[in-house]
Amino acid sequence: MLQISIYGGSGYAGGELLRILLGHPQVTIKEVTSRAYAGRFIHAAHPNLRQVSELKFIHPDELTECDVLFVALPNKVSMTLMPELKKKAQKIIDLGADFRLRDPAQFEDWYHTKHALPSMMSEFVYGIAELHRSAIQKASYIACGGCEATVSILSLYPLVKHGLIQNNIIIDAKMGSSQAGLSPTLSSHHPERSGVVRSYMPTGHRHTAEILQELSSHLLLDPSDKPQDDKPLDIAISATAIDMVRGILVTIHTTPREGLTEKDVWKAYRTEYGAEPFIRIVKERTGIYRYPEPKLLQGTNYCDIGFEMDTRSNRLVVIGAIDNLVKGTAGQAVQAMNIMCGFTETTGLEFIGLHPI
Amino acid sequence: MLQISIYGGSGYAGGELLRILLGHPQVTIKEVTSRAYAGRFIHAAHPNLRQVSELKFIHPDELTECDVLFVALPNKVSMTLMPELKKKAQKIIDLGADFRLRDPAQFEDWYHTKHALPSMMSEFVYGIAELHRSAIQKASYIACGGCEATVSILSLYPLVKHGLIQNNIIIDAKMGSSQAGLSPTLSSHHPERSGVVRSYMPTGHRHTAEILQELSSHLLLDPSDKPQDDKPLDIAISATAIDMVRGILVTIHTTPREGLTEKDVWKAYRTEYGAEPFIRIVKERTGIYRYPEPKLLQGTNYCDIGFEMDTRSNRLVVIGAIDNLVKGTAGQAVQAMNIMCGFTETTGLEFIGLHPI
Amino acid sequence: MLQISIYGGSGYAGGELLRILLGHPQVTIKEVTSRAYAGRFIHAAHPNLRQVSELKFIHPDELTECDVLFVALPNKVSMTLMPELKKKAQKIIDLGADFRLRDPAQFEDWYHTKHALPSMMSEFVYGIAELHRSAIQKASYIACGGCEATVSILSLYPLVKHGLIQNNIIIDAKMGSSQAGLSPTLSSHHPERSGVVRSYMPTGHRHTAEILQELSSHLLLDPSDKPQDDKPLDIAISATAIDMVRGILVTIHTTPREGLTEKDVWKAYRTEYGAEPFIRIVKERTGIYRYPEPKLLQGTNYCDIGFEMDTRSNRLVVIGAIDNLVKGTAGQAVQAMNIMCGFTETTGLEFIGLHPI
Amino acid sequence: MLQISIYGGSGYAGGELLRILLGHPQVTIKEVTSRAYAGRFIHAAHPNLRQVSELKFIHPDELTECDVLFVALPNKVSMTLMPELKKKAQKIIDLGADFRLRDPAQFEDWYHTKHALPSMMSEFVYGIAELHRSAIQKASYIACGGCEATVSILSLYPLVKHGLIQNNIIIDAKMGSSQAGLSPTLSSHHPERSGVVRSYMPTGHRHTAEILQELSSHLLLDPSDKPQDDKPLDIAISATAIDMVRGILVTIHTTPREGLTEKDVWKAYRTEYGAEPFIRIVKERTGIYRYPEPKLLQGTNYCDIGFEMDTRSNRLVVIGAIDNLVKGTAGQAVQAMNIMCGFTETTGLEFIGLHPI
Repeated sequence: MLQISIYGGSGYAGGELLRILLGHPQVTIKEVTSRAYAGRFIHAAHPNLRQVSELKFIHPDELTECDVLFVALPNKVSMTLMPELKKKAQKIIDLGADFRLRDPAQFEDWYHTKHALPSMMSEFVYGIAELHRSAIQKASYIACGGCEATVSILSLYPLVKHGLIQNNIIIDAKMGSSQAGLSPTLSSHHPERSGVVRSYMPTGHRHTAEILQELSSHLLLDPSDKPQDDKPLDIAISATAIDMVRGILVTIHTTPREGLTEKDVWKAYRTEYGAEPFIRIVKERTGIYRYPEPKLLQGTNYCDIGFEMDTRSNRLVVIGAIDNLVKGTAGQAVQAMNIMCGFTETTGLEFIGLHPI
Repeated sequence: MLQISIYGGSGYAGGELLRILLGHPQVTIKEVTSRAYAGRFIHAAHPNLRQVSELKFIHPDELTECDVLFVALPNKVSMTLMPELKKKAQKIIDLGADFRLRDPAQFEDWYHTKHALPSMMSEFVYGIAELHRSAIQKASYIACGGCEATVSILSLYPLVKHGLIQNNIIIDAKMGSSQAGLSPTLSSHHPERSGVVRSYMPTGHRHTAEILQELSSHLLLDPSDKPQDDKPLDIAISATAIDMVRGILVTIHTTPREGLTEKDVWKAYRTEYGAEPFIRIVKERTGIYRYPEPKLLQGTNYCDIGFEMDTRSNRLVVIGAIDNLVKGTAGQAVQAMNIMCGFTETTGLEFIGLHPI
Repeated sequence: MLQISIYGGSGYAGGELLRILLGHPQVTIKEVTSRAYAGRFIHAAHPNLRQVSELKFIHPDELTECDVLFVALPNKVSMTLMPELKKKAQKIIDLGADFRLRDPAQFEDWYHTKHALPSMMSEFVYGIAELHRSAIQKASYIACGGCEATVSILSLYPLVKHGLIQNNIIIDAKMGSSQAGLSPTLSSHHPERSGVVRSYMPTGHRHTAEILQELSSHLLLDPSDKPQDDKPLDIAISATAIDMVRGILVTIHTTPREGLTEKDVWKAYRTEYGAEPFIRIVKERTGIYRYPEPKLLQGTNYCDIGFEMDTRSNRLVVIGAIDNLVKGTAGQAVQAMNIMCGFTETTGLEFIGLHPI
Repeated sequence: MLQISIYGGSGYAGGELLRILLGHPQVTIKEVTSRAYAGRFIHAAHPNLRQVSELKFIHPDELTECDVLFVALPNKVSMTLMPELKKKAQKIIDLGADFRLRDPAQFEDWYHTKHALPSMMSEFVYGIAELHRSAIQKASYIACGGCEATVSILSLYPLVKHGLIQNNIIIDAKMGSSQAGLSPTLSSHHPERSGVVRSYMPTGHRHTAEILQELSSHLLLDPSDKPQDDKPLDIAISATAIDMVRGILVTIHTTPREGLTEKDVWKAYRTEYGAEPFIRIVKERTGIYRYPEPKLLQGTNYCDIGFEMDTRSNRLVVIGAIDNLVKGTAGQAVQAMNIMCGFTETTGLEFIGLHPI
């Protein structure tokens, strides 16, 4: 049995890691840290774990060595602790934002602070298995993708790689409330947050940087789209918070290269994802769930992707959905751990989702 | 007192007309028709009207003459009845889609049927007061805009008229369930509809035709955007149903003309809407309601509009919100009636909305 | 024009007072206080008031004299300020809990603190117009009922007064989130509060004291129910928070006196409430809104009451619904003001509610 | 591997059976019937099963023999088909209402029709394992309890068995929309169903009959409560539909026998349920999930039970929660199958639920 520990286990990502790992037959959870809950049962923070485990939180200072350490901390914290954390485990999986980017300048540009440990940025592998499986196999350090970035990258990757779209990508993201974490604020206060369609970040979303990084390295846009050589990918995100707890849906507006057919799009997705256990192409002619629907993905590690060609307006609309806390965070982390440790990739991630819900 | 009647009064639009007109001090509701509810009190269909009115539905065949007739019927029905309805009233306000377009070919293209009364299409004035106030004053027949079209047109009109954006407009609409009317289907069944982020019309939305018609006549896009002379406006809509009953929010992704500043945008909106009683520009630096929010507009006739410049990606994101049943339907109709009949334009439409809600 | 001011205007009750009073044709809002928002527009706290009023909050210390002062403060605050506030206005309407009870011992028992101004407790009239209309007419000081107490008292009053039920009353209250005010806490945090059916107060609800006080003074329970002379009313409340912002529904489980018929119940309600403008008896044989439904009451001052006899189990189930912020707080206050000041009782409270919503 | 089939597999109960059984390591799903979906993949009806199984629905007439047959049909249908179904399998688990009651007169009284197969009523064992484990072990036919009955019976059973409460029980049930099945009606139409607190069955709930049957056989109420010998249990249900898809919470209002202490209640629950894998007593002094919360139980087979003594009003309030489609239907059925077939009782039912959700 692999001994794993979680540094920062009282938040939503930590809770989801616990839920998944408690059901994982090849790991034992050795320690879980929390300053606020040290000494208390984990179900004090995560009520779904009642009677499921007698594990207690420990204070971060008490952390001992383990095989794999998961780190689930607020942005800009893990980069200051990483030198210490490296001493605790040979394999580290960071669920936060600090080591997702490889370029310190990009980090500073988007996070408005200098990176505390730029030398280590290149040691981390970006955690999306579908793009980096073989690198993850050999990696010691993983930086899981942001939830909004993960679903966007997965939705766009085959199109960009196969050169099917022009350099003009608009991501309209619909977000649940759990992605903002568990600190109550006026903006998360139920009477204010309930029923909203809140344009909380119409421009300037930080995940743009990750998406650019990941897609640019696979850049093979439509060659007739000349500017590609000179300028980076042209990607814009607008994020709208809606009345949902778990889940993200992205509606991605793209311009197809000339002559693109639906068949070409199917082919690109099948080529890249035909063997992927957690990616499903959802595009039905009938029924009410014809495209990806985040509510069906709650608790699952799936990324569902659909698309529609608009011949009138010459658009290719791509739709992607995930559970932000699973494929967008903790599930992605466990999938990466499974790969790193030589386990079956889907272990612990078998939950198939509920309907109706 | 003006005598008004409603043809088709048992649906959501009819109910909203009743709610507004029962509080209008200058009109009397003479008759309301419904096949299904003929002979029953109006509160049998509209429970909010309990104890508010003793009016009963009549069968459509019993309709007599009145001063203004509101018509609230499913698409493709009013065009077959209009010859008869014209005999009942000199002023008719149609809340359906049949007479919104002026071009029969466009109608056939988008509604997949020949128009039954093409000769009368040009007699109707499109009902958005902010664009057609003086025509409405003199009009006999009004066709109210579709709810999704109304908020999109109002959000874009100043930008298009002042030539501030390029010919490349993407409307990402988030829709409540009431816009689909009151017929239960599997797609409106609560266990299936609750919590969805359903891409129910990623492409091909019919309201595109209205938006093109209304904005094209004011077309003054950025002159440096050459293709404008040769091709029509390039507008695409993707519509996503979310867990909301009333309300629409549109996130409109546009490309600003070169050199456009935020000040230019403010100026265009102020020029066009500075004196408008039902349009508010919502763009705050602080607080949690920094952009338009449909939940605050429930029951009101406001159209709230906000925007954000994205300098990184060279975008202008415009955000518009309405209550689809008020400014998007019945409120727009009453506003038009007020103008046609020489009443103060805001009469009966004074409700300012609730918070929290 | 009457000059009114609001002491404590940035909370939900204050916002609702502003919404109602801004539309009241016989009053002018002179001042509104807020420590946190002093100097800012009222729409900074109440986004629905954008463009509706240019009023600004003032600091409480700047309050000057007015005709009627509304006080909307957290529990246990107004009792310490009342000596000062009395100097500002001859008429005071307190929306908080401090002066609802007439017995200082009861206050201490339920609020776990000694009352700061017991001498003034008897000067306040409990603000439910349907029970105390003539006292309110002559009153200088009004204490509005708690929201949960208001709907319970109104639902039960005719039954108790006419001796139709036995001394064994269970109130099962379903509550929206706005009743807890605007301070964010973990329990109001959207991911935690959304979708709950939270038994937040299964026993020990403070409003029990008000209900006992108000109903006991009208006590005329079934005389065959012997113990009534010796012991007080036997009332228990269990409160469950559900996923709703505005609104309360109480399901009241009672035991009818022997031989009670549905006709007797109708008669009692008609006798007491037949002429009441804000009380509706809702009990239909068909349709989907056969009993009171809080969502239809949002923004209205109605209290809807229904009931059902259960012959199998010898129960009389009574169902009451209100908007906690209107009839349960600010609307009740304005209704009382209208009575105190000789205005038409319904002025400013005409909103009839939305459907669908 | 056990061969199981599902008769009536396209509804919500059938879908939930499929979800659970597809993950059960000791069974193979042989056949699933549906008239409407015959020939189509099961994910046409159950979108969460996409890419999870290639099983197709067959027409009911094509059903062949199997080891265990699950029957998920509307009320009053399985009793007409049972003679035929008995030929298909030696073990039958019926999820509907037809064989829950043992007394044909009771069935007729509550279901307003004569039972079609009264002779077989006594052959079925009521499916709640916690009450009937040993009978289930030996049974051929199981009738699963109704969802509302299941949570009520489990919440009350230890109190009744140990004689802790008086004969005066009021069950106030808060219900999700999925319990009404998948046929769209006006009452399930999203604009009408969303946000409701609908008193859809304040009296006369059919599940009363099951609860009476199950609790009466364990009757050992407080002996000082004299009438118990002469009259049946006095139980009343009021059911309120709230804005929730999955889940039931019951708030049960009871009168404790004289002198009852909290310790006595704890003891009764521990005695009966201390070893039960799917029952948890939830009663915390701190935190926001201090009592059972249905949203945490979505997808799980738990029944969470809590309680609170009210010394002021001499009440014992008991709170129970389940997922109506799991412990209330399909999970209960699989738990019974596991017992009947000698499998570990929790097999396939290990999902521990999500937080936040």
